[in-house]
Amino acid sequence: MGFFVGKDREVRRAYGFDEIALAPGALTINPEDVNASWTIGNLKIDIPIIAAAMDGVVDIKFAQKMGKLGGLAVLNLDGVQTRYKNPAKILNEVACAPPETATALIQNLYKEEVKHELIAARVKEIKSAGVICAVSIVPKKAAEYGPIVQKAGADILIIQSTVTTVKHESSAYESLDFKNIISNLDIPVIVGNCVSYDATLDLMETGAAGILVGVGPGAACTTRGVLGIGVPQVTATVDCAAARDYFFKKTGKYVSIITDGGMDSGGDICKAFASGADAVMVGSLFARAFEAPGKGYHWGMATPDKNLPRGTRVSVGVNATIKQILVGPANLDDGSQNLAGALKTSMGSLGAKNIKEMQMVDMVIAPAIKSEGKLLQKTQKVGMGKK
Amino acid sequence: MGFFVGKDREVRRAYGFDEIALAPGALTINPEDVNASWTIGNLKIDIPIIAAAMDGVVDIKFAQKMGKLGGLAVLNLDGVQTRYKNPAKILNEVACAPPETATALIQNLYKEEVKHELIAARVKEIKSAGVICAVSIVPKKAAEYGPIVQKAGADILIIQSTVTTVKHESSAYESLDFKNIISNLDIPVIVGNCVSYDATLDLMETGAAGILVGVGPGAACTTRGVLGIGVPQVTATVDCAAARDYFFKKTGKYVSIITDGGMDSGGDICKAFASGADAVMVGSLFARAFEAPGKGYHWGMATPDKNLPRGTRVSVGVNATIKQILVGPANLDDGSQNLAGALKTSMGSLGAKNIKEMQMVDMVIAPAIKSEGKLLQKTQKVGMGKK
Amino acid sequence: MGFFVGKDREVRRAYGFDEIALAPGALTINPEDVNASWTIGNLKIDIPIIAAAMDGVVDIKFAQKMGKLGGLAVLNLDGVQTRYKNPAKILNEVACAPPETATALIQNLYKEEVKHELIAARVKEIKSAGVICAVSIVPKKAAEYGPIVQKAGADILIIQSTVTTVKHESSAYESLDFKNIISNLDIPVIVGNCVSYDATLDLMETGAAGILVGVGPGAACTTRGVLGIGVPQVTATVDCAAARDYFFKKTGKYVSIITDGGMDSGGDICKAFASGADAVMVGSLFARAFEAPGKGYHWGMATPDKNLPRGTRVSVGVNATIKQILVGPANLDDGSQNLAGALKTSMGSLGAKNIKEMQMVDMVIAPAIKSEGKLLQKTQKVGMGKK
Amino acid sequence: MGFFVGKDREVRRAYGFDEIALAPGALTINPEDVNASWTIGNLKIDIPIIAAAMDGVVDIKFAQKMGKLGGLAVLNLDGVQTRYKNPAKILNEVACAPPETATALIQNLYKEEVKHELIAARVKEIKSAGVICAVSIVPKKAAEYGPIVQKAGADILIIQSTVTTVKHESSAYESLDFKNIISNLDIPVIVGNCVSYDATLDLMETGAAGILVGVGPGAACTTRGVLGIGVPQVTATVDCAAARDYFFKKTGKYVSIITDGGMDSGGDICKAFASGADAVMVGSLFARAFEAPGKGYHWGMATPDKNLPRGTRVSVGVNATIKQILVGPANLDDGSQNLAGALKTSMGSLGAKNIKEMQMVDMVIAPAIKSEGKLLQKTQKVGMGKK
Repeated sequence: MGFFVGKDREVRRAYGFDEIALAPGALTINPEDVNASWTIGNLKIDIPIIAAAMDGVVDIKFAQKMGKLGGLAVLNLDGVQTRYKNPAKILNEVACAPPETATALIQNLYKEEVKHELIAARVKEIKSAGVICAVSIVPKKAAEYGPIVQKAGADILIIQSTVTTVKHESSAYESLDFKNIISNLDIPVIVGNCVSYDATLDLMETGAAGILVGVGPGAACTTRGVLGIGVPQVTATVDCAAARDYFFKKTGKYVSIITDGGMDSGGDICKAFASGADAVMVGSLFARAFEAPGKGYHWGMATPDKNLPRGTRVSVGVNATIKQILVGPANLDDGSQNLAGALKTSMGSLGAKNIKEMQMVDMVIAPAIKSEGKLLQKTQKVGMGKK
Repeated sequence: MGFFVGKDREVRRAYGFDEIALAPGALTINPEDVNASWTIGNLKIDIPIIAAAMDGVVDIKFAQKMGKLGGLAVLNLDGVQTRYKNPAKILNEVACAPPETATALIQNLYKEEVKHELIAARVKEIKSAGVICAVSIVPKKAAEYGPIVQKAGADILIIQSTVTTVKHESSAYESLDFKNIISNLDIPVIVGNCVSYDATLDLMETGAAGILVGVGPGAACTTRGVLGIGVPQVTATVDCAAARDYFFKKTGKYVSIITDGGMDSGGDICKAFASGADAVMVGSLFARAFEAPGKGYHWGMATPDKNLPRGTRVSVGVNATIKQILVGPANLDDGSQNLAGALKTSMGSLGAKNIKEMQMVDMVIAPAIKSEGKLLQKTQKVGMGKK
Repeated sequence: MGFFVGKDREVRRAYGFDEIALAPGALTINPEDVNASWTIGNLKIDIPIIAAAMDGVVDIKFAQKMGKLGGLAVLNLDGVQTRYKNPAKILNEVACAPPETATALIQNLYKEEVKHELIAARVKEIKSAGVICAVSIVPKKAAEYGPIVQKAGADILIIQSTVTTVKHESSAYESLDFKNIISNLDIPVIVGNCVSYDATLDLMETGAAGILVGVGPGAACTTRGVLGIGVPQVTATVDCAAARDYFFKKTGKYVSIITDGGMDSGGDICKAFASGADAVMVGSLFARAFEAPGKGYHWGMATPDKNLPRGTRVSVGVNATIKQILVGPANLDDGSQNLAGALKTSMGSLGAKNIKEMQMVDMVIAPAIKSEGKLLQKTQKVGMGKK
Repeated sequence: MGFFVGKDREVRRAYGFDEIALAPGALTINPEDVNASWTIGNLKIDIPIIAAAMDGVVDIKFAQKMGKLGGLAVLNLDGVQTRYKNPAKILNEVACAPPETATALIQNLYKEEVKHELIAARVKEIKSAGVICAVSIVPKKAAEYGPIVQKAGADILIIQSTVTTVKHESSAYESLDFKNIISNLDIPVIVGNCVSYDATLDLMETGAAGILVGVGPGAACTTRGVLGIGVPQVTATVDCAAARDYFFKKTGKYVSIITDGGMDSGGDICKAFASGADAVMVGSLFARAFEAPGKGYHWGMATPDKNLPRGTRVSVGVNATIKQILVGPANLDDGSQNLAGALKTSMGSLGAKNIKEMQMVDMVIAPAIKSEGKLLQKTQKVGMGKK
């Protein structure tokens, strides 16, 4: 199963979205007949596509619109929304900063303290639209903010950091008791991120309703370059989904696997489900919405780290509404719009009636296609030859 | 035979044209002595290279010229030719549209209805030149248009969509009865596209005379990016050809395997035959003909989809006649001209007397060569250093 | 040993120079103590690096200089040197042609007939400098020109075409009797090109003194793009060298394996020997000599083909003397100069005393290094950020 | 374990940093609790990151600052520092030379003789700051300079050339007796470079305290292009570390494995430790320091070779202090700053308390991520479309 990278050191090959493709078989289904919905706790969500808790992507209005369209957006409670009363002004500063000083500016702006009263206020603002409200906090604040969040009316709590494990050693502080925190809350708690079978099992034992899968794959994340750490998402999702299936067999409890990061198109989203995901979380694809607060820029939650920033402010431009991106109609054909439609069409073409069946479709290892690029190059040469 | 992409998930590696090369052995044949002809139904076609049913590639005159040169071109009966009395004007609009609005324009132009009288008219126009006439329709129109097409004198009917299977589930409409449709027609019917052994067998059982192989590989197709779906053509062709051989052993009926899409050069075409194809269908290579109606642009049949366009209007420029492209002489050395000559020269160099032998030549997995690029880069550096 | 590219179709992976690297071990040798010489027939050649029979690379003066430096250059007797009394003028025309008409111009210029009297004259011109004279002809002219060439005083005859096999079928002409042609000549005959074990054995049986190995790898060759044919040179050399070793064991006769094409640097040349070559033939590296007649351009022998040109006129610029390229000193560090010095230094670092030992050094499969490129990109970004 | 590159020739696949990634598991540690220190001889060094002995990187002041920050920098005693009394002037000349003449200029400047008095003087200058002093010399000067260096007060001696082996054959001079040289010195001696298990064992037998691992991977090194030689660093480090572990089991003596070259980021450094390194030596990352004498340029020790230069003067620009690069805080997020912080954060995320545990963390083979690039390209297209 492994490859030797040197004497006596056998390691696994891990695969990413660019390296696989889905293979249709002998059955197809009318896309209008497929069911892509997702259930977590008692909540049923029509479209299993979640906008990531990034300050450049999700603000109050964004979360409300996503909810009304049948999807879900997570508000980051550790960012500008809870540090500043008027986050729009701050976000504007980031968008206007020249590239070479953007990281330093972000580091500086995030030195402002998080304010308790803003946490509750933001949750209530989202709920005022009558949609499901999901918010995210960092592990070390989970015990403190969890009850505030629940009391304010949030429906889903996400506890998230770059790498999150139940077992954590520190001489300076006491380790987090995830089990205790989660059992004290009534709302479903999603925890992450992790990428291994064992870490997933540990996190499931704490009572988590969902697990975020993904370390180092995202577009706004430089974890792999800075720390050398990162597992491509197909392999990470397959492994963590295997832990989910084992846990379900053992306990009867079905915990959601949510692939988080690294998806650049509807095609990548389809591949995440085919790898075993119950839902996916994407950032950069939604950053291109006219309604996104980052105005075409987004950055990850490790960007503000004051000693070792590991996120990039990525410029993606804006070119569509949230609606176009989530449910279409698309006016671009590059896989960046009508993500829900793409998922259903893909499921139909692959003969998958629901997400459970989509998790079992055929995939092949296949190099990313570059045919188009080759042709375009030819064209340009021809064009040049004529001038 | 497979690779593990994660715990307990074993998948196959699939290969595309760029990854293989043909290996000459101990026998060569004078290219003038090789026979590359192809038989489907009672029709014998000298050159087994088919121009794809794309609106930017094939119109009436194009089909007539291809036929006279010994090849075959397919007219798309679901596009501008049957929606508009004067398609040239429409095609001109597409060619003149700026890149960022091209997809939306195409979506809009294809809202016009297909007209029955134009279907019959187009078939008769092609036949007036005394050549073999092949036309394509989408599955849901097969029962309706099939008889019209045959009555008008077409020689070959192609029923084609992105992924076509005999087994199809829908709550909104009744599934297509391919067997019935085909048995009611006297002309050979080619069905596709598919990429798997099982789906090919199913389609062969319906009485099809040929199967189109290829999902997601073409230059004007973004199926893989949008839906995550796509199987590289070498593997798809090998698999479907294996189904053909099994079906022939079982039934005595030889059904043609036609590799459709993803071929960018004469070299790719040769590889398709070496993978098991009886004929090939190419779009972009013919889009560069002076006679192509797209004036250097072409686009796929999923481009007009109103909710989820998955085709690109590709600009390839024009630089040769149909004759130069199909039978030469070539004045470019990049594999884009004299495709029939390239096939015969390749067969001679590989010691293959006919297509059956070409299907069994040696191939190796080999990375695409980039030597030329490396040298050119060196050159440019040298050049720059001197200025 | 193989990989499945589809159902029941198992093929080998073939490797090129970019994919391997040589691995030093526990012994090193002073480069001044290694012996890289090569013997063919009764001729001993100090430097086993041959300038290819390309019209843009080798003319009379070039061949004389190479010989005096201890190397060997081959004059093409099927090109401008034997078609035109004053080839310099013709070569100048090619060098001045704009890119888009170069292939057509070359096709046209090569329509001129080859003249018998020029064949003998060119051989005598080279010999007048007292160096070893090697010339090349195409197979179909071998019986006719062979005796002329020998009578004029040539030392080595090369019979060369894209793919050459002993077994060749044609209804229009009689197959070449290599055995008869070679036995009628007293000088050593080198035959090629081929890439397989069986074809090499066949050619060795004819009495050839050397075999040219390489189909489709060269910088001025588009065989792979046009015909789909090409085997990467590491695998081709290893296979043909295995045939040489078997033939030597069986007959006691040692036939040279000469890797021809695809080498872009001294490093690639070293890898060819490590793969089993006794000598190498390179074109583009010598095309950069101030003395090369192509003035910075070169093209392959299939470029002039009137129906299916498969060679490119490659522009490489000129930047060094033949002496600098062959034996140094180098003033560039990119592996394009002092090829003989690079070979000896590599042999020393790998602990190989002679070419026989060099053929057995350790190699590893390793991706081409791009570290430099990565750094340079960073630099440019930094630079841009500062402006 | 191997792959066949041709008949009967089985070779290993070797892996570089770009091809692997580190995989977090079920345990994490507070980065402030990890211990990354390194011991060689009786010296304990807090940060196991060494600035390479390159003239463009390390001068007296640089070495002093690195030592004070807890790291180590090696002064090259075979370069401009010992050939010229005023090296700053010479370094300035190199920095100002245009690219096409830089190699020739470096070749020329290094013709100046090394002066004994400057060797001792440089050592004393470094020691005057009270830091650990490490210097490097070439093997053929080891017997001559070793005692001078020790007498002047150096703490660590490095004997280094491109490929260094205990077994070396030469007819012109007597082979170096490493064992004798090392036993005559009291200070720890580090020897290299090598890449194989056997060569490492041989060098360890001589009494070396550390082994430099790396041939052909560095950014300023063109060994692989010129000589075809080079083993990617993950495999080289794993193999040499295996020799260390075997030698320790056999003799009880622990010899340090120091991965030298090819690391472009903190991530690559983390991967070197995960491959088995006890310390790492990097050049290009420190060349970007404001304090580096090369003013944004650096070059390797084989660049000055007068017949066969194999190093490039690489331009990297300058953008940070030594302190920012080594211990942060970082103001760039590309992995080029706060290398020690990155190592500790990575160790914490991977659950490794010390370097010994870091050598055993999980790694996977994974393609280099290009997600960011893909997105940026999209952005640019969008941007262009709007103008």
